[in-house]
Amino acid sequence: MPQSAHINRQILLASRPVGAPTEANFKIVESEVPKPGPGQMLLRNLWMSLDPYMRGRMSDAKSYAEPVPVGGVMTAGTVARVMESNLEGYQPGDLVMAYTGGWQDYTLSDGSMVFKQNPDMKRPSQAVGVLGMPGFTGYMGLMDIGQPKAGETVVVAAATGPVGAVVGQVAKLQGCRVVGIAGGAEKCGYAEAELGFDACLDHKRDDLAERLAAACPDGIDVYFENVGGKVFDAVMPLLNAHARVPVCGLISQYNATSLPNGPDRMPLLMRLLLSQRIRMQGFIIFDNYGPRYPEFLEVMTPWVDAGKVKVKEDVVEGLENAPQAFMGLLEGRNFGKLVVHIAD
Amino acid sequence: MPQSAHINRQILLASRPVGAPTEANFKIVESEVPKPGPGQMLLRNLWMSLDPYMRGRMSDAKSYAEPVPVGGVMTAGTVARVMESNLEGYQPGDLVMAYTGGWQDYTLSDGSMVFKQNPDMKRPSQAVGVLGMPGFTGYMGLMDIGQPKAGETVVVAAATGPVGAVVGQVAKLQGCRVVGIAGGAEKCGYAEAELGFDACLDHKRDDLAERLAAACPDGIDVYFENVGGKVFDAVMPLLNAHARVPVCGLISQYNATSLPNGPDRMPLLMRLLLSQRIRMQGFIIFDNYGPRYPEFLEVMTPWVDAGKVKVKEDVVEGLENAPQAFMGLLEGRNFGKLVVHIAD
Repeated sequence: MPQSAHINRQILLASRPVGAPTEANFKIVESEVPKPGPGQMLLRNLWMSLDPYMRGRMSDAKSYAEPVPVGGVMTAGTVARVMESNLEGYQPGDLVMAYTGGWQDYTLSDGSMVFKQNPDMKRPSQAVGVLGMPGFTGYMGLMDIGQPKAGETVVVAAATGPVGAVVGQVAKLQGCRVVGIAGGAEKCGYAEAELGFDACLDHKRDDLAERLAAACPDGIDVYFENVGGKVFDAVMPLLNAHARVPVCGLISQYNATSLPNGPDRMPLLMRLLLSQRIRMQGFIIFDNYGPRYPEFLEVMTPWVDAGKVKVKEDVVEGLENAPQAFMGLLEGRNFGKLVVHIAD
Repeated sequence: MPQSAHINRQILLASRPVGAPTEANFKIVESEVPKPGPGQMLLRNLWMSLDPYMRGRMSDAKSYAEPVPVGGVMTAGTVARVMESNLEGYQPGDLVMAYTGGWQDYTLSDGSMVFKQNPDMKRPSQAVGVLGMPGFTGYMGLMDIGQPKAGETVVVAAATGPVGAVVGQVAKLQGCRVVGIAGGAEKCGYAEAELGFDACLDHKRDDLAERLAAACPDGIDVYFENVGGKVFDAVMPLLNAHARVPVCGLISQYNATSLPNGPDRMPLLMRLLLSQRIRMQGFIIFDNYGPRYPEFLEVMTPWVDAGKVKVKEDVVEGLENAPQAFMGLLEGRNFGKLVVHIAD
């Protein structure tokens, strides 16, 4: 099913996954390209973002956002071109980022959660990456909750992903010691050699706790949490007094179907927060920080343009390959920001 | 062993408790009243505070403060009169609060962690209560971390204790709905009738989770954590988006010798923080907020004088009765701020 100017391919949630998603949870369908009604515009999606949060939308567990209904189009942010517009302020040819563009070729939009982009931007896919939700997430979580100070130690996992890479590079720009955690020697080498991390540890090797302790001789002042699980277990004993733990994601838990075996360490965590006077805070980027998006862009855009914040993309060609790519994302198989190239 | 002008009674940590402290963990000894050397003063302790944090100092588990050594004098804040002084700025007759006065009749001090009190204060014991560490703890934890807004729901346990009573009354002064939790009908009745709480639930009765849900129809915006355990279990499902949880103490856990059985709910707590965007932050009052003590006193003193913040003390007569009273405190047998009256 190639792309077409007349056919709208859509990837639907066919059923809710139990544990890791499989091909059977997705269904691709075709229909005619819709016509925009009054107050609507038609968007042609060019780039689509794949992000861990989408796993949560596939479940109907209580969460901050409504789940995707079974039979509904999978949710995604896209970079899109306006094809037709009955909406004031938008013209055919405009480049936009649509926060709810979805896993599809074409999207009808009333303009809500749509952000105009500079039509001359060098790399439009960055509007869903370093200059979009993932970059904004890393930047605000680090700066507003993490509050890093020069000389402090910052630890971040998924270090070569679009959030972790921003966290680590921005922390370096603040004068921090930065220790990353990533899966495999290639990612770790990239984090150290290209992103400038002081160290990056391979979580697939043994003895993560011991290696992390050795890499953080002065303990940990900021742990940017995006994975949970065994990485957090290794971090806990190293957290310094007054440490800050922004909780952005818990990708290691998303496919879990039950809680781990005991003992119940919840009291242990609370006691740690108390005795070390730790601030731990969850956040959802546009919910907590939406109005500060322009401020973020003003800081990050020149950093990216000047190469102070480097960007690595993992490009998947073709909308039809999104399900496989998304399953790989949850297992850490991507290397860099995962984007799907839908059309030019 | 009555008090004496020549004998200094001291209560020592005889051994470290396993689980709940017993009489055997304490030892009372007598010695001569010490003479202050150069740069020292001799304090006569009049009132001594008993607080849950002292349980932590009896253990040698890693914590924010050094443990009391076995054979050392138990730690406590006291209100004291200066008897002799070789220390500039202090005169015999001065009234002070000594943060490390200890479980003893007399204390040698070099003036560190000593705060002068108004000699005309109506009720000197309040310097270790509503106007001292517990009141300061409740006020700052609520206002700085909890950040209550008018119309929000604030929940606090140990509601008639010196911290909880301040939290609830100050939250009422901010226009919040306040739900307390306490042990027994008498304490709950007092919290509602005298302290002005909107509701107070008896945790000794069944179905705490259901009763708390009924008392918080709009959910919980601020939970001031000072007990942990089953109260927190009841609070968790009611926490609203953007709730704040200052963690001040975990008295229900202090005598625990092992973690509860599984499953391991630590991932559940982290997921809750993320999905509800909750801020959870431990604090130790003088460590986090020491410089703001004068600011607190300026606000709280007129509230207490005007009866806007009411105070209930549970007075134990005689230093020798401190161990029993402390054991009772850990089981919630006190009613109001527990203070030991040592001398006039």
